[in-house]
Amino acid sequence: MGDFVTRRRVEFADTDMEGIVHFARFFVFLETAEHELLRSLGHEVHARDPDGTRTTWPRVEATCRYTSPARFGDELEIRMRAARVGRTSVTYEAEIRCEGRLVAEGRTTAVRCRVTEEGLQPVPLPPALSEALTATSDD
Amino acid sequence: MGDFVTRRRVEFADTDMEGIVHFARFFVFLETAEHELLRSLGHEVHARDPDGTRTTWPRVEATCRYTSPARFGDELEIRMRAARVGRTSVTYEAEIRCEGRLVAEGRTTAVRCRVTEEGLQPVPLPPALSEALTATSDD
Amino acid sequence: MGDFVTRRRVEFADTDMEGIVHFARFFVFLETAEHELLRSLGHEVHARDPDGTRTTWPRVEATCRYTSPARFGDELEIRMRAARVGRTSVTYEAEIRCEGRLVAEGRTTAVRCRVTEEGLQPVPLPPALSEALTATSDD
Amino acid sequence: MGDFVTRRRVEFADTDMEGIVHFARFFVFLETAEHELLRSLGHEVHARDPDGTRTTWPRVEATCRYTSPARFGDELEIRMRAARVGRTSVTYEAEIRCEGRLVAEGRTTAVRCRVTEEGLQPVPLPPALSEALTATSDD
Repeated sequence: MGDFVTRRRVEFADTDMEGIVHFARFFVFLETAEHELLRSLGHEVHARDPDGTRTTWPRVEATCRYTSPARFGDELEIRMRAARVGRTSVTYEAEIRCEGRLVAEGRTTAVRCRVTEEGLQPVPLPPALSEALTATSDD
Repeated sequence: MGDFVTRRRVEFADTDMEGIVHFARFFVFLETAEHELLRSLGHEVHARDPDGTRTTWPRVEATCRYTSPARFGDELEIRMRAARVGRTSVTYEAEIRCEGRLVAEGRTTAVRCRVTEEGLQPVPLPPALSEALTATSDD
Repeated sequence: MGDFVTRRRVEFADTDMEGIVHFARFFVFLETAEHELLRSLGHEVHARDPDGTRTTWPRVEATCRYTSPARFGDELEIRMRAARVGRTSVTYEAEIRCEGRLVAEGRTTAVRCRVTEEGLQPVPLPPALSEALTATSDD
Repeated sequence: MGDFVTRRRVEFADTDMEGIVHFARFFVFLETAEHELLRSLGHEVHARDPDGTRTTWPRVEATCRYTSPARFGDELEIRMRAARVGRTSVTYEAEIRCEGRLVAEGRTTAVRCRVTEEGLQPVPLPPALSEALTATSDD
């Protein structure tokens, strides 16, 4: 299966006084792409399990390398894949391009967690999701 | 009693490609000033009541008039007061200045609500808070 | 001519700890809708005029009334029109709905300005834009 | 010389629907800490050189590891140092703590650039800044 691809146009509020997209905004772009990827696989993010348990996907690491600037009005293409699918976590890798030009490369690791009174507790990925994500990964 | 005054320095991420503070950021400045004002009166925002009920302060209206731009590094002075203290709501008015120059004027109305399973339910202000806020208002 | 309509899905980063869209984010939604409205009329926002002058649209006032909350994943419909078209300014009014339910009503006034060494200087709207915007207004 | 230390209180708008600081906001915290560090060394960020050239500090890489959540009202302590001072770039490392507890660790690399008509061009750090930063680094 190929990579997941989504698009978004740079908004005015994404820019900073240098006239380019502020570097922290790319992490929002990556997160939203990740959610769209999960939705495209039929998985509802931040949902309740049949037994009433609420699960969520906190990030344990996020990194971004910036290659060239993006500007107001640019249409960005975000190409993402699950680079590593673990028992309770997923590492996503993404390339963000504008008209073919590489703008940024991102990598985030999210852990599936159950929300409990005591805090967040890692839980295994549902097998169907694990399988679907693996199909988008490199291997 | 006089107005509540707080300060904050404009951060790089507050700016947009015009080189000035993005207009939507002023609403965050107003909200944080409001929380600091409440804290200065000994009221904890988004707290649990003694009976375990959680209360919060959703906004029902927010408005801002922009007079002159603020830029990266500027130290803003936010002068705020409770212009109207109702049974369940408070309307705050604020002036944001930079070295005396008027930058923006804001006005927000927040309603004290109890968080219930069915949603948010307006509840009266605690009398002590109501009194303290009234002392900062015009009347 | 009818109102301009655009849609956007609530992103995770739009939410706050109350589980709803943070009130300041709606101003970004309004701004982006305004830019899309201008683009739909063939007007490039933040462009250079044929004579090399750069123009921009700073806001002088922005207001929003919040009726009911919007949540992560909600698809919002933003219906916007130019309520008043002045010589150098435009006042936009918008309704933000989720599956028909009114979420928020916004009103922003932007002034067309030339960017000069001395700062921003209001300039008249291009006649074609003025006409096109008027056609979306109430009158 | 010791690390640079700064503090900031978590604002309501920093949080997301999980009730914790949104992961992308930490990059804003890191950026602002970096600017304060530079200011503490007498270096003006995003300034004009005596010859009129404007310089800026775009990021080429940013990474953050999240250890435990931070919540609304938490006072964060950000401890930062220049881990590597290159000819035209600086790599900063930071620990973000709340009452001693490690919340996140960040690492960003910024390149000093001259703003030209053709875009950004890396330029060497001023010797005085290079020296001052090196004094805050590991070596």
